[in-house]
Amino acid sequence: MRSFDSRPIGIFDSGLGGLTVAAAVRRLLPGEDIVYLGDTARAPYGNRSPGTITAFAADDMDFLIGKQVKAVVAACNTVSAIALEKLCERHPEVPVSGVIQPGAEAAVRTGGRRIAVLGTRATVRSGAYPKALRALSDGLEISAFACPLFVPLVEEGILNGPLADAVFDLYLHDFQTNPPDVVLLGCTHYPLFEPALKKWLPPSVAVIDSAGACAASLKQELEEKGLAAPPGRGGALTLYASDITPTFREQTAAFFGASVPESRLAVLN
Amino acid sequence: MRSFDSRPIGIFDSGLGGLTVAAAVRRLLPGEDIVYLGDTARAPYGNRSPGTITAFAADDMDFLIGKQVKAVVAACNTVSAIALEKLCERHPEVPVSGVIQPGAEAAVRTGGRRIAVLGTRATVRSGAYPKALRALSDGLEISAFACPLFVPLVEEGILNGPLADAVFDLYLHDFQTNPPDVVLLGCTHYPLFEPALKKWLPPSVAVIDSAGACAASLKQELEEKGLAAPPGRGGALTLYASDITPTFREQTAAFFGASVPESRLAVLN
Repeated sequence: MRSFDSRPIGIFDSGLGGLTVAAAVRRLLPGEDIVYLGDTARAPYGNRSPGTITAFAADDMDFLIGKQVKAVVAACNTVSAIALEKLCERHPEVPVSGVIQPGAEAAVRTGGRRIAVLGTRATVRSGAYPKALRALSDGLEISAFACPLFVPLVEEGILNGPLADAVFDLYLHDFQTNPPDVVLLGCTHYPLFEPALKKWLPPSVAVIDSAGACAASLKQELEEKGLAAPPGRGGALTLYASDITPTFREQTAAFFGASVPESRLAVLN
Repeated sequence: MRSFDSRPIGIFDSGLGGLTVAAAVRRLLPGEDIVYLGDTARAPYGNRSPGTITAFAADDMDFLIGKQVKAVVAACNTVSAIALEKLCERHPEVPVSGVIQPGAEAAVRTGGRRIAVLGTRATVRSGAYPKALRALSDGLEISAFACPLFVPLVEEGILNGPLADAVFDLYLHDFQTNPPDVVLLGCTHYPLFEPALKKWLPPSVAVIDSAGACAASLKQELEEKGLAAPPGRGGALTLYASDITPTFREQTAAFFGASVPESRLAVLN
């Protein structure tokens, strides 16, 4: 007999970028309740030190555990790259997954050998993607590019046009003449750039983001562990943020791809 | 008989931008000890809500009070615009000053009537500069422009060139054909853009930043209140930051205009 679990899934990010992952989870698992936390008072994490990132991620995780979640997704590449092991040790009572492993698997599945990872400074410095990719396949040619202006640009809603192209050129100039086979978007903000980036890159390049792969991997894990929601119900999304600014509504809608029904303030330390 | 006070001056900012003010204070008051705090773990403040900005500024101020400072400068336009009154109420035992009033005075002293204020979203939304300017002079024509990409660009060291020009054009396009008399740089990061911005603007425009004016106003206040350092000594600068990242040294040097001798980690809530 299959067992079910009606507790919510917890998803968190430094800010609102992880809503791209929450949206993918809702599409694939529409019966699951989701509690999302965005640490918008302290975002972005991507330029901070590993110690600070780990401390902030622990606060985020503690908050979700307090909401009785059955599983946690660190929907933030920076946290997944730096702090995932520490989070698993801190809360062994729930499965904790990140976005690096599913993203690396999706990139390898393309069959491309030359893989370029784009991410925050902290993600790139961690070496987490190259490590995950090498464990999956031999003979890959892996490069990694820190693109610290991508996040502020996306947050300003500048998703295409001459300014976006100038920033692509700043970080990825050589791709125009010497393109990789695969560009792996190693930050949950970057999928909003995907249409413009595909247009800017040579057409041979495959662009991969980890949100869909992350949702598929979560589905499998919940089923294997008997944690899936009972069938025949519609799930709810509750959004908590540590700061709710005047531009909050537009930003959540941009990342979620639809308006977010309900949101509350979470005070983190 | 003049009285003196050898306790340090406290200066804080959301991050490292306030080091432009600390550098101006050191030039004008070389005998003063300075304790600087940059809340680098939670920077930038400029897009956050007034409640969060006020709470973070209170933490910063409490930290400096714990270092036995004799006066505090909020070297952050966002904090000066949003939270200055609350900070004065919280610690009536020390004089607290900001950067808005000195900046507004410096802009009015130019004699220009059409003044454009550039700042963060929170600073512009607060209306603090227009209010301070109107109190100083009648008949000014004041406009204000939120330039949220300026801070990340400066932090990435992109201080000129085509990308900087594209961002100037994004926010200030109309200045090319319809320039103000004065551009007031209402954020402590922006002075690093000053050479490129002057080159981009029509030559008739005066560009004003508040760092020098802020230091002059502090000097006067310390003298009036008998709080100046005893003569004939050299002051020390101690820098605390709530996060020390791998790029910290280069960033402090960029904002301070020289290498910062000593820095320590301050854990804020």
